[in-house]
Amino acid sequence: MIWKFENVITMQNRITELLKIKYPIIQGGMVWCSGWELASAVSNNGGLGLLGAGSMHPDVLKEHIIKTKAATNNPFGVNVPLLYPDIEQIMDIIISEKVPIVFTSAGNPKTWTQTLHNNGITVVHVIANTKFALKCVEAGVDAIVAEGFEAGGHNGREETTTMCLIPQIRNSVTIPLIAAGGIASGSAMAAAFALGADGVQIGSLFASSLESSAHINFKNLILAAAEGDTKLSLKKLSPTRLLNNEFYQKVLELELNGATPDKFRELLGKGRAKKGMFLGDTDEGELEIGQVSAMINKIKPVTEIFNDLISGYNKAIRTMPASL
Amino acid sequence: MIWKFENVITMQNRITELLKIKYPIIQGGMVWCSGWELASAVSNNGGLGLLGAGSMHPDVLKEHIIKTKAATNNPFGVNVPLLYPDIEQIMDIIISEKVPIVFTSAGNPKTWTQTLHNNGITVVHVIANTKFALKCVEAGVDAIVAEGFEAGGHNGREETTTMCLIPQIRNSVTIPLIAAGGIASGSAMAAAFALGADGVQIGSLFASSLESSAHINFKNLILAAAEGDTKLSLKKLSPTRLLNNEFYQKVLELELNGATPDKFRELLGKGRAKKGMFLGDTDEGELEIGQVSAMINKIKPVTEIFNDLISGYNKAIRTMPASL
Repeated sequence: MIWKFENVITMQNRITELLKIKYPIIQGGMVWCSGWELASAVSNNGGLGLLGAGSMHPDVLKEHIIKTKAATNNPFGVNVPLLYPDIEQIMDIIISEKVPIVFTSAGNPKTWTQTLHNNGITVVHVIANTKFALKCVEAGVDAIVAEGFEAGGHNGREETTTMCLIPQIRNSVTIPLIAAGGIASGSAMAAAFALGADGVQIGSLFASSLESSAHINFKNLILAAAEGDTKLSLKKLSPTRLLNNEFYQKVLELELNGATPDKFRELLGKGRAKKGMFLGDTDEGELEIGQVSAMINKIKPVTEIFNDLISGYNKAIRTMPASL
Repeated sequence: MIWKFENVITMQNRITELLKIKYPIIQGGMVWCSGWELASAVSNNGGLGLLGAGSMHPDVLKEHIIKTKAATNNPFGVNVPLLYPDIEQIMDIIISEKVPIVFTSAGNPKTWTQTLHNNGITVVHVIANTKFALKCVEAGVDAIVAEGFEAGGHNGREETTTMCLIPQIRNSVTIPLIAAGGIASGSAMAAAFALGADGVQIGSLFASSLESSAHINFKNLILAAAEGDTKLSLKKLSPTRLLNNEFYQKVLELELNGATPDKFRELLGKGRAKKGMFLGDTDEGELEIGQVSAMINKIKPVTEIFNDLISGYNKAIRTMPASL
């Protein structure tokens, strides 16, 4: 599974070495957007593609793993929310299919890290505060993703932004650190490295890509999103960044009126995220996307996204004052 | 008023040239923290010190301007919230005292820019979204400060974080751009430059400095602040980032119960910010500070802050991948 771009000199750091990738760019394993087409395209371009197990039944995940392996010889991974109901079955599939890398989130990093390590799998855990970063170190994970307030979907209660979170986590732990939240350009990638990250995880930009499995109606709303069009919502249940639509307006009304958690649960019901993001009902569906969607204006193939990120990074570095 | 550090080679850019300063570091003109001692210390260290007119009666401001001029030969400025009741009188004092630079905020940049320019004064306006950035260009201001969600005190309704806001504003306008919100270290400064800023405005870190006029009780709470201890609050009036204390808990209770704007106004009353930040009643006072307070752990003199920022910037630049 070790893989190299031959005859190309590239930067190497702790993240590219750990994950055996060319660029320190990870595609977030997002619900309803991250199937085998997106993950394999990202891995084929030298980043790390992740399948989003959070929206897949175990048999669907297995199919996507098999298709990803057929579509790329490069490393890829699976993102697994640890609160997933079929978690044992999911982990069995990941182990038996020899997936090389697992990103875990939404749960205790201690629960699965040892089992995955025993099977030769690299483990990365997603956190949003120092307390959980330290738990990750205790659990022996190989790297962490620190995700800021501006990120789409589920998010930390502290509301710490990427700008504040990354230096804080960098000061607290020494393991490799991947920054997430608000990164959709080479200049934001450069900012993440300045803050102390060793790599970046990018969600919204890949959700909007040609290879994303998001419904075209959802992609079109990502392109249309302007400043202020996403808000961290549902704080009485689990803070989630939503894109403004009819469903969001109903959430907002409950929030402004101080509704109880039960009222939110009742409104939310079941299957809202699938309805909006995968089936394209952009009025009644729940649309999870990051604040940086305001800067995304075109559906691009993954190859173009990589070219833009890399040239943008190199340009940003060249225009920064070399010293003060 | 043109001033130079002799025999020292330093970087120069559009912000250092516009404001005639050594380092592209501006101290935010904060209410109750930014008197002549802080502003002159910052200017003497090669940054731009700003007096915070938002918490000064006109005669108090005049006294602080005179004291600042006595304490430094370097450029300094005044931050003026344009909704200030005595705005005409404030501007008369600024003009007659020949203050070289004015930062305006909380109002329309068209109202005063021409008058200030006619008197040879450089004008910088503070914004939190693209719409107002474009208004600033129309009004002919010399530079803008773009302030992200993580900043302390009054804040934009869009909740756009510094990581998302700076590239967005950089793509929309060509005038010099100063980043604010979440910046209290050299690495965050480097991140701001990577995002496209020409300079940084730093608030919380200077509010906690030895020379700040904030009450010691407030400074001690800034040092004690942990992740999640500040929240953007009072959204039904004007979004304001507050530090968690007894008063904040009362605000939070109203928010969770969906209280009307009148209930918030009633709770707020008059003089809460002075009570907390200047008089040191940290239970009943309103404490405005940025999210980055979680990283501030020591009261430092301004000279030490400058040394740390500059060495931190230079270190951050050296540790970033030079290209991808």
